Amino acid sequence: MKKYEVIAEEMAAAIRQGLLKRGDKLPSIRQVQALKQVNASTVFQAYYLLEARGLLVARPRSGYYVAGNLHAERSLAPGGMPPAGLPTMLQVSDLVFTLLDRIKDPQHVPFGSAFPSPRHFPLAKLADHMASAVRRIHPSDTVSDIGQGDNALRRQIALRYQLDGTHTDASDIVVTNGALEALNLSLAAVTQPGDSVIIESPSFYAALQAIERMGLRAIEVPSHPEYGIDLMALEQAIIQHQPKACWLMTNFQNPTGSLMPEDKKQALVALITRYQLPLIEDDVYRELYFGKQRPLPAKTWDSEGWVMHCSSFSKTLAPGYRVGWVSAGRFTSQITRLKISTTLATSIPAQHALASYLAKGGYDKHLRQLRHQLMLQQLQFSQAIYQHFPEQVRFNLPQGGYFFWMQLPQHIDSLQLFQQAIAHNISLAPGHMFSSQQQYANFIRLNYGHPLDTHSLQAIQALGTLMKQVSN
Amino acid sequence: MKKYEVIAEEMAAAIRQGLLKRGDKLPSIRQVQALKQVNASTVFQAYYLLEARGLLVARPRSGYYVAGNLHAERSLAPGGMPPAGLPTMLQVSDLVFTLLDRIKDPQHVPFGSAFPSPRHFPLAKLADHMASAVRRIHPSDTVSDIGQGDNALRRQIALRYQLDGTHTDASDIVVTNGALEALNLSLAAVTQPGDSVIIESPSFYAALQAIERMGLRAIEVPSHPEYGIDLMALEQAIIQHQPKACWLMTNFQNPTGSLMPEDKKQALVALITRYQLPLIEDDVYRELYFGKQRPLPAKTWDSEGWVMHCSSFSKTLAPGYRVGWVSAGRFTSQITRLKISTTLATSIPAQHALASYLAKGGYDKHLRQLRHQLMLQQLQFSQAIYQHFPEQVRFNLPQGGYFFWMQLPQHIDSLQLFQQAIAHNISLAPGHMFSSQQQYANFIRLNYGHPLDTHSLQAIQALGTLMKQVSN
Repeated sequence: MKKYEVIAEEMAAAIRQGLLKRGDKLPSIRQVQALKQVNASTVFQAYYLLEARGLLVARPRSGYYVAGNLHAERSLAPGGMPPAGLPTMLQVSDLVFTLLDRIKDPQHVPFGSAFPSPRHFPLAKLADHMASAVRRIHPSDTVSDIGQGDNALRRQIALRYQLDGTHTDASDIVVTNGALEALNLSLAAVTQPGDSVIIESPSFYAALQAIERMGLRAIEVPSHPEYGIDLMALEQAIIQHQPKACWLMTNFQNPTGSLMPEDKKQALVALITRYQLPLIEDDVYRELYFGKQRPLPAKTWDSEGWVMHCSSFSKTLAPGYRVGWVSAGRFTSQITRLKISTTLATSIPAQHALASYLAKGGYDKHLRQLRHQLMLQQLQFSQAIYQHFPEQVRFNLPQGGYFFWMQLPQHIDSLQLFQQAIAHNISLAPGHMFSSQQQYANFIRLNYGHPLDTHSLQAIQALGTLMKQVSN
Repeated sequence: MKKYEVIAEEMAAAIRQGLLKRGDKLPSIRQVQALKQVNASTVFQAYYLLEARGLLVARPRSGYYVAGNLHAERSLAPGGMPPAGLPTMLQVSDLVFTLLDRIKDPQHVPFGSAFPSPRHFPLAKLADHMASAVRRIHPSDTVSDIGQGDNALRRQIALRYQLDGTHTDASDIVVTNGALEALNLSLAAVTQPGDSVIIESPSFYAALQAIERMGLRAIEVPSHPEYGIDLMALEQAIIQHQPKACWLMTNFQNPTGSLMPEDKKQALVALITRYQLPLIEDDVYRELYFGKQRPLPAKTWDSEGWVMHCSSFSKTLAPGYRVGWVSAGRFTSQITRLKISTTLATSIPAQHALASYLAKGGYDKHLRQLRHQLMLQQLQFSQAIYQHFPEQVRFNLPQGGYFFWMQLPQHIDSLQLFQQAIAHNISLAPGHMFSSQQQYANFIRLNYGHPLDTHSLQAIQALGTLMKQVSN
């Protein structure tokens, strides 16, 4: 541990133990510097780390305060969790496609983007691995890597599961074209048109689109903005509607950023196992945690193979390579067959490049940098938002990932705001994209995965002004 | 034109004009050598070329004969073309998966394989293009290449269409994970569960699998072993069953190798346009022609955009890269949306590598070599088959591709033969894979895309022996 980490840890402990309470002012940099006999930059780094963990907040021209009170008054109220909705045929895909199409315009400040800045990734180093890996591809690999995927890559993926005690064998893993294919194949493996599927409310729009495309019915079960899906509502929905699958996110949910606590994950797996309900666990943000430890997936407790755990390298390492996977438990052979008959194989050069990088490229070092960068950006963005958005805007500081899920004043329609923002070359993701119901009409998802430069700072100011204009 | 090509062309003209008739003995190498004042190897090359085109046949210890008679007695009779079948729910996928799984064992002589030998491809040169292309990927490409695909690659693909007069713009092209994804997305774009779809009989098993997976009904329309789908039966089926799509192959059909003549392709497009029936044209073997000119796709005559022309580089250049495309006419935007919501994008390094190779890698030179190699193998395999298979075995010499579609004596069940062959470490593709009906139970598809080495020659002998044992 470095000096600044020791200091940060001491203060964090004091906060945890209640010695320092929410809203308390912290000693100044100068005071700590004198007390600990360190230089100012060490104290600054310690405070910085605590800020990034969301434990303290800097107030301009005032000093540092234990967080919570400051953010608490801004944070999302979970509200009375409504009961699950009825199974519904969806009609949201058209809207989502239209919005996605406009969001991707490179001219816009990408607050609506689903991706972190591509500049956060070691593209040059990956290119080196690609260059040498592609030269080592044996002609026979072009046949043997069909279907389930390259053996070496599957072993590397399985190793990462084993690092934190999740039992997964290379033979359980199907390599896919990104997590999106993994999720779609998983859903296709366990459903027929007309079946009902449980999703979270709000939920990642790809789940809504998949359900609509496959002619399924969605049951939207409320999800807590900090702790994820409501297990009681989930069980009621299972009993009432006999769904064929449940698709959710346990770690840094998209859009809310919620992180399901471990005991809740365990209870979730026990629940779906009891009802033999296949669980599609979308876990693409797990590596982007800001806490001390990588959170576990629900898959960790899946002794009977009902969990299809889907992830990828697209948001953590290799955007555009399109390499993801599913650790598919009892559904491995069905999913492999679906893969063979729909896209046959995942691009073999990309698989080999990633297998090579994972074996010796320094993935964990890169991830540490990426997490630090995202933590920093969360901090910077939140400060700018406090300053420029109307006070009534509510949002949480998620413990990982790169999305804020923001509740705007009731009278602001986020689709209208979207149109106005686009006119100012700013994109955002309106709440309408995350549910087939209208309950998130005054929500937006805001991406802080890009550095806060002058351009995006101005965009935050402009967005704030737009919101205030509507408010008046 | 080289000297040997001139000589070959003169002889071919003589055969076409009937000056040399089927079964006629050709002048000896020595005679032509004297006559044309060339050396023996030039004559040999000319004869070799004519053999490869199927125009003449060498009889050991006897000389060269105009082909046709020799092969004619061995070739497939199209038989009375039966009427189209009724729309049927399929149940063939399980069998196909089981067989595919066994066929891919690298220990087997790969007569059942769907791929040509991976050694026929310029993997090292592609690797060079990959190595430099991946270093030039701009971070923003990882976003802009999502969905429809990389612009540079789509321009290169469009250029190749334009080479032989098929109007296709880069904006019509959606880059996919191989042709298989293109075909599946095309089918999904125009059908709903319960709809009927016209396919050929026999047809590529991926069509059967897609129809079964999507809950569609198949109408199997007979396909002529030399000239492709029966247009009269096709029109009757359209009128009778109001299908939502037609999926077929116009060039070197899998499994028959049939090549639809140009006027028939034109009539096909007129027909489907008249009925506004979306046509999914699977055209992955077009570049593997043995004749003088690259055959045109039906797409060439598609002025109203009803044809979704699907192809890839997997069988002509870059196996395992998983890059294909569809030139999707009026369905481009639906297919792009399906792509975005199922696999999002095609691996970007692979797209950039191919765009770079196509721009300056010598694709046409490679294709000439590949075609020559496949022609040679067709010749060698057919000679070995004449020698070792029972005389009653019937098959055509297709004008491109790398499959023989072989009719065995009626009493041989190809599934049983498959089991016996596998026990001898030889794979083959039983006729059962190519139809939901049982009418091809005594057919096999045999791959001549791999060089005929001692090992595969022994395998042909062994297969012949197995067939003869069953015959007795």
